[in-house]
Amino acid sequence: MDELNQKGKQAKTAAYKLSNVDTSKKDNALEAIAEALIINTDSILEANSIDLVLAREKGVKGALLDRLTLTEDRIASMAEGVRQIKSLPDPIGEVLSMWKRPNGLIIGKKIVPLGVIGIIYEARPNVTVDAAVLCLKSGNVVILRGGSEAINSNKAVVNIMTDALKKADMPDGCIQLIEDTRRETAVEMMKLNEYIDVLIPRGGAGLIQTVINNSTIPVIETGVGNCHVYIDGECDHTMATDITINSKTHRPGVCNAAETLLVDKAIASEILPSLLRKLRELNVEIRGCDRVKEIFPDAIQAKDEDWHKEYLDYILAVKVVDGLDDAIEHINKYGTKHTEAIVTSNYFHSQRFLQEVDAAAVYINASTRFTDGFEFGFGAEIGISTQKLHARGPMGLKELTTTKYIIMGSGQIR
Amino acid sequence: MDELNQKGKQAKTAAYKLSNVDTSKKDNALEAIAEALIINTDSILEANSIDLVLAREKGVKGALLDRLTLTEDRIASMAEGVRQIKSLPDPIGEVLSMWKRPNGLIIGKKIVPLGVIGIIYEARPNVTVDAAVLCLKSGNVVILRGGSEAINSNKAVVNIMTDALKKADMPDGCIQLIEDTRRETAVEMMKLNEYIDVLIPRGGAGLIQTVINNSTIPVIETGVGNCHVYIDGECDHTMATDITINSKTHRPGVCNAAETLLVDKAIASEILPSLLRKLRELNVEIRGCDRVKEIFPDAIQAKDEDWHKEYLDYILAVKVVDGLDDAIEHINKYGTKHTEAIVTSNYFHSQRFLQEVDAAAVYINASTRFTDGFEFGFGAEIGISTQKLHARGPMGLKELTTTKYIIMGSGQIR
Repeated sequence: MDELNQKGKQAKTAAYKLSNVDTSKKDNALEAIAEALIINTDSILEANSIDLVLAREKGVKGALLDRLTLTEDRIASMAEGVRQIKSLPDPIGEVLSMWKRPNGLIIGKKIVPLGVIGIIYEARPNVTVDAAVLCLKSGNVVILRGGSEAINSNKAVVNIMTDALKKADMPDGCIQLIEDTRRETAVEMMKLNEYIDVLIPRGGAGLIQTVINNSTIPVIETGVGNCHVYIDGECDHTMATDITINSKTHRPGVCNAAETLLVDKAIASEILPSLLRKLRELNVEIRGCDRVKEIFPDAIQAKDEDWHKEYLDYILAVKVVDGLDDAIEHINKYGTKHTEAIVTSNYFHSQRFLQEVDAAAVYINASTRFTDGFEFGFGAEIGISTQKLHARGPMGLKELTTTKYIIMGSGQIR
Repeated sequence: MDELNQKGKQAKTAAYKLSNVDTSKKDNALEAIAEALIINTDSILEANSIDLVLAREKGVKGALLDRLTLTEDRIASMAEGVRQIKSLPDPIGEVLSMWKRPNGLIIGKKIVPLGVIGIIYEARPNVTVDAAVLCLKSGNVVILRGGSEAINSNKAVVNIMTDALKKADMPDGCIQLIEDTRRETAVEMMKLNEYIDVLIPRGGAGLIQTVINNSTIPVIETGVGNCHVYIDGECDHTMATDITINSKTHRPGVCNAAETLLVDKAIASEILPSLLRKLRELNVEIRGCDRVKEIFPDAIQAKDEDWHKEYLDYILAVKVVDGLDDAIEHINKYGTKHTEAIVTSNYFHSQRFLQEVDAAAVYINASTRFTDGFEFGFGAEIGISTQKLHARGPMGLKELTTTKYIIMGSGQIR
C-alpha cells in the first residue's frame, strides 16, 4: 500500500503548513480552482466520457449513469459552488471563549482545523470538488477515495485542482486522490490512523456500514434517514396533507425524505382517504398496517421490515397509532435518528415531541426536507451526521474543525 | 452474551426516560448515592477486602495494590466527589443558539444527553462511582465494565448506587455493571452499537489501543500523554527550571507529566548543568542526546525510541534542539497531541508555538500539569481527550452531551 502511505505522509506534512495559511490566501486558491475548472472543461468532459463508456459497458444506466455524467453546465455549477464556499466566513482562528483562573492562568478555546480528513465516497465526480474545497476552506488537507466508476473524471478534476493550488503557492499535497480503487485499499485506508485524523463516508447505507465496521480512525457517520411524519389527532388537516406530500415526494431519493407516515387513530379515517389518494396519484406506493388497510383498501400490507426501511423511492409505509406516546415509541424504535416531524396544533404535544424524540433534527409543523446545510443557513454542507459524537445534523464548515486550548501563563506551577 | 444484550436493552430504555428527568430530581438521586456510600461503608470495605486478598494471591503489589485499596477515608472522599458533581450546573436543555430563516422556520440548537455511554476501565473502584455519577448528572445512562481485580468492590458499589436510585424514584437501569469480566465480553461490548452511543476507555495505552482497534461504536480516546517542555533561547532561567521540575516530578505517573525536555542549543550549556543536577537530586533519570551528554556526562544515552515514550515514571528524555523550528518539528513528530509547553520571553516565539504545535493544550510559561478538568475550572473530569473529534483536552459534563436541532414551523414545505 505504498500509495496510501506516501500520500498519507505528504498529507500530514501539508496539514501543518495549511493550518497556518491565512484566509485570503486560501480564498485566492479557491478562486484559482474555480477558474481552472472552467478553463479545463473540455479535458474534464473527455475524461468523463471514458468513465461513461466503461460504465455503459458494465450495464450501468438510469439514475446511476446520470449521477456519473458531467456536462458543461454541471462543471460550471461545480465552479460556482467553489466560489460560494470561498465567500463563506472562515471558521479557523476564532477563540470561542477565554477565561482567567484564580492562579492567573489565561485559558482560551480556539478553533483549529481537524488536520487530515479522509473522504470515502461513491461515483459522483462533483463530490470530488465539493469535498476538497470544503476541506480546503476550513484549513484541512483531504485524501479522497472515490468509486472506480468515476476514476478518470476524478483524476482529471484532482489534477486540475492540484495545478491551481501550485500556482496559488499553496503547500504540496493539500488535495490528494487515492487512485487505487480496489476495495482492500479502501479498507487499508480506514486504518491509516497515523496520517488521517477523521474519516467521513459519503454514500449509501452499505458503504457507511463498511466504514463503521472496519475503521480504526474516528468516523463521522452520515446520511441514512428513515424519517417519519406524525399527524397528531389535533392538527390542521390541509397542513398535514401538504407536509406529508412534500416530505415524501419533493425528492424521494434523498436522506431527509419521509419514509413512514404515522397517524393518530382519532383522525385516521377522516384524513387518510384523501391524503393517501393524493399520494397514489403522485405514484407513491402505500404500504399500510391493518388499520390503514381497513380505511384504504388499496394499500399493500406492510410487514415489520417496512418500518425499518429507507426506501429512497416512491413508497411510503403508513401506520395508525394510538396517539402521541405510541408515535414517539415507534419513532425511537425504528428511526435512524435523522429527521422526525409532527403536525399538530396542540402545544403540549409539540413540546413533548421536541423533547422525547431522539433525532438530529425534530420538526413541528414543517417538512422533513429542511434538514440540509443550505436550508439551515450554513451556506454549505459536507453531509448530515446521524451520530451523536462531534456533530449532529447538517455539517457545514464549522463541523470540519476542532479546538485547541491555548494557555498563557507567567511561570505557574502546581 | 445474554448479559450484554439484556443490560444494553435496559440501558436504552432507561436513556429515553432519564433524558426527560429534571435537574432537581437528578440532584436528589446524587445526594441519595452520596449518603448510601457513607452508610454502607462497611459492606464496601468487606467486598474490597475480598478483591485485595485475591490480588495479593496473584502477586499484585505496590502502586497497583494501592489503587485497588479502599479505606473509610477514600469512601468518604468518593461521597464528597458525588456531592461536588451534584453542585455543578446541569448542561442539559440549554439552547446554544436559535435563529430564524427567511421562510420563517425557527431553528434552535439544544444540548441533550449522548444517551448510553459505555466506560471500559481498569482496576480502580473509585472510577466506578465517579464515571457513573458524571454520566447521571449529564442525563446519560452508563454501562460500566471494570477490571476483574476490582469486581467485588465494583459490584458492591453499583448495588448500593442502584438501590439509592430506586429509592429516589429514578428509571431502572441508569447505572449498570457488566459482571462478566472476560476479555471477549469486553470486545463484544465494543460492538454493541444497537445500545451504546459512545465508548470511553479509561486506563493505560494498551487498553485504549484495544478499544480503538475493536470498537465499532464511536470512541473518545483519552489519556496517553508524551508531553514536552521546550526551553527557548530567550527565557527566564529560574522560570524554566521551576516549570521543568514541576512538569516532571509533581506527579510523574499521570498523563500530563512531562516526558521530554527540549532545550535551545543557544542556552543549553548555560541552563542544563544545574537543571539536570536538580532533577537527578529528585531521583529523575536523565536520558540525553549526544549534545546533552557532552554538557552533562551523567546522562544515559537516549535512543530514538525514548522520544516516543510515555514513561509515567522518574525518567526524562532531554534533547538539545536548533531553536524553535526544530522544537516544533520534534513535538509534532513525537508528541501524542496531549499537552505541550514553551518557556520563553520572546513574543513571536510564544505566538508561533501556540499556533504551530498540534496538541489539545498548548502552554506559554506554565507547567504541563494544569491540563486537568478541575484546574481548567470545569469542576469535574471524565478524562482528557487526545483525539480531535467531539472533545479535545479535559472533558467535563458538557463534553458528555450532544445537540439536537429543534425546528418550529407553521406549515413550511419546500
